[in-house]
Amino acid sequence: MQRLWAEFIGTAFLLIGVVGSGIMAEALAGGNVAVALLANAIATGCVLYAAITILGPISGAHFNPAVTLAFALRREIEVPEAMAFVAVQIVGGAVGVWLAHLMFDLAIFQTSTTDRASTGQWAAEVIATFGLLTIIFGGLRHRPEAVPTLVALYITGAYWFTASTSFANPAVTIARTLSDTFAGINPAHAPMFILCQIVGAVAAVWVARKLFA
Amino acid sequence: MQRLWAEFIGTAFLLIGVVGSGIMAEALAGGNVAVALLANAIATGCVLYAAITILGPISGAHFNPAVTLAFALRREIEVPEAMAFVAVQIVGGAVGVWLAHLMFDLAIFQTSTTDRASTGQWAAEVIATFGLLTIIFGGLRHRPEAVPTLVALYITGAYWFTASTSFANPAVTIARTLSDTFAGINPAHAPMFILCQIVGAVAAVWVARKLFA
Amino acid sequence: MQRLWAEFIGTAFLLIGVVGSGIMAEALAGGNVAVALLANAIATGCVLYAAITILGPISGAHFNPAVTLAFALRREIEVPEAMAFVAVQIVGGAVGVWLAHLMFDLAIFQTSTTDRASTGQWAAEVIATFGLLTIIFGGLRHRPEAVPTLVALYITGAYWFTASTSFANPAVTIARTLSDTFAGINPAHAPMFILCQIVGAVAAVWVARKLFA
Amino acid sequence: MQRLWAEFIGTAFLLIGVVGSGIMAEALAGGNVAVALLANAIATGCVLYAAITILGPISGAHFNPAVTLAFALRREIEVPEAMAFVAVQIVGGAVGVWLAHLMFDLAIFQTSTTDRASTGQWAAEVIATFGLLTIIFGGLRHRPEAVPTLVALYITGAYWFTASTSFANPAVTIARTLSDTFAGINPAHAPMFILCQIVGAVAAVWVARKLFA
Repeated sequence: MQRLWAEFIGTAFLLIGVVGSGIMAEALAGGNVAVALLANAIATGCVLYAAITILGPISGAHFNPAVTLAFALRREIEVPEAMAFVAVQIVGGAVGVWLAHLMFDLAIFQTSTTDRASTGQWAAEVIATFGLLTIIFGGLRHRPEAVPTLVALYITGAYWFTASTSFANPAVTIARTLSDTFAGINPAHAPMFILCQIVGAVAAVWVARKLFA
Repeated sequence: MQRLWAEFIGTAFLLIGVVGSGIMAEALAGGNVAVALLANAIATGCVLYAAITILGPISGAHFNPAVTLAFALRREIEVPEAMAFVAVQIVGGAVGVWLAHLMFDLAIFQTSTTDRASTGQWAAEVIATFGLLTIIFGGLRHRPEAVPTLVALYITGAYWFTASTSFANPAVTIARTLSDTFAGINPAHAPMFILCQIVGAVAAVWVARKLFA
Repeated sequence: MQRLWAEFIGTAFLLIGVVGSGIMAEALAGGNVAVALLANAIATGCVLYAAITILGPISGAHFNPAVTLAFALRREIEVPEAMAFVAVQIVGGAVGVWLAHLMFDLAIFQTSTTDRASTGQWAAEVIATFGLLTIIFGGLRHRPEAVPTLVALYITGAYWFTASTSFANPAVTIARTLSDTFAGINPAHAPMFILCQIVGAVAAVWVARKLFA
Repeated sequence: MQRLWAEFIGTAFLLIGVVGSGIMAEALAGGNVAVALLANAIATGCVLYAAITILGPISGAHFNPAVTLAFALRREIEVPEAMAFVAVQIVGGAVGVWLAHLMFDLAIFQTSTTDRASTGQWAAEVIATFGLLTIIFGGLRHRPEAVPTLVALYITGAYWFTASTSFANPAVTIARTLSDTFAGINPAHAPMFILCQIVGAVAAVWVARKLFA
């Protein structure tokens, strides 16, 4: 139960970080999207470092159904608990988005209208998620205490080097459909993102078996 | 006595960092508020990392009455010393603001006219302080040597993902009423911020009891 | 074989980072080149930290023929393996560039038209590569666990303090001839960059023998 | 002798970092001084982290006559060696500036015309140097392995929170008189900066005796 609370709080704070900093950045940047994305990327990295450091020892700090799926494929988490993790991550992500809206005096319940659908972005989600899982598996294998820093810096960088700004997380993708702000994604475009994330995660499990044996 | 000096110097440097970098950023940014806030957030994180690392072993590096309150509730600091800590933090914060004004050739004694009063910002202060204390308790429980990095990165991120730019500290709030610059807050709006910070801190003490038992 | 795969994946991700973030940055920055280069530098540092941390224990995480050459000169890698490393780095770099183009819906195969040929830039490549190798040798000598951070921060800084934005890597130089985007280099100007990098690397081997004996 | 070479190379690279990134930043920022200073501050922090990490175990990585003076006052370095350190730091700093000019195709020998003379900036240099030395003494006392990170982050922050952008180093001050670029300082204004730095350093020695006993 403590593990589920850790996943809930961690995913909620991750989405507060992603969506909240996106709202703030867009409000202040005055059309300078590069500065907005830089703030968004740095803030997300900061939240990830903090949340993974303090909650990792409790639940593993997945905050991400693609991560939970990958650990299930590696038989490092039981299927029933994995399913509970995913459910809690999705709810936590939604709650995080709503808290971000609350803080910025916006309507709590929204639906994004931001289109994110191109073959490039789909390729980006496969690569971003493949990279994220590879970082996690490699970190756990070679330097477990560095995993919070690894994930935080990888995602901060991946905001910039992937065409999709690197969602790489089905719970984050679903949560971001609920916000018509900087970080949002049109709900119609979420399933394809999630499918690409699953492909990237499965590929990473396979590669990690060779690379980090 | 050495512990009180550590709290004094640390809080003074924290406010030099917050207010000084705000003045510099506003002066250079030419209306580009996003860049100003980015510099402000990064500079604050840098000061926090440095001050907590060198003064933490002496006083615990609270620099924050909400932190001292939380430790008192956990009976990890005696009430008389906690009261002395809070007094010294408030004085240190004010001295830090005045030194920042001195450095930038501004009038030493000022009163802020920046309004910060919305339900969103109040919610933001509750969430920001809850998050800060949760980070501290979790860090102390699972990885004490990472606390300076945890607090520094959390605050750098929270500048962006909370609507209030994350004061999360009653001594900082009081000190910032004394500066009519980028980081200021109208004194009339300080009490509500402080109340929200106390609510967030108390909630974090309660949650930490469950989460980091 | 696992070592060659590590060099391939690492160099590919490095180029995804360099070229992908360059494309994103240029697209968003609206002519503000300083912000574009800042994002480019930060994203590259993030990728380097992650890739060196997880792949260093496998192959040493060279990702760079100049590094492999320097280790060969120090007789810390056999010549046949060094040659295989270099080949794999060049192929991996090219694949990384093509994946970046794929993600951003650009033509996969391109040739850069960005001129980078001045005596200042040549001096910069000598100094940048000398510095990079000196950092690596000093780090391995005095604090091996810090090498990923050292290289990542050095390169992030060197984007700014060298006139060439610090390629410092023949495989990266070749790969960047294949992209007519922010990070590209005219193929005609690559050989001189590579020659300067080799000079810098050899000088660093010689200095390190004195300095880190 | 190895120790003097370490001071020479470290100070030269520090100035390449400070002056080179200032030139690049000013060239790209198109009048957006805040972005220029942000790049300048980040690049300087990166160089400091790298140079202190690899050279600290050899010479202590002072790169700064104010630091050497403070260690002499604490009798942790002999006076003759301290004098040699200071000489080498000044020469190394000048060489670093000239190499930066070489890389950016500028006249090698220049004299700055940038005025930096106000009571606020003098106060800033006292505070900046006091803070730098306090960070160093506190770090050495409580967490020596963190000193490179402490100094790097402190200086990155101090660029922003001090009115002088925190020279805090007589060798850097002298070197920066030799560059009529972003980071320069009018030679007529250097002596007062250096005097203030010495005052700050001496004050820090005195406070550290109480605080880190």
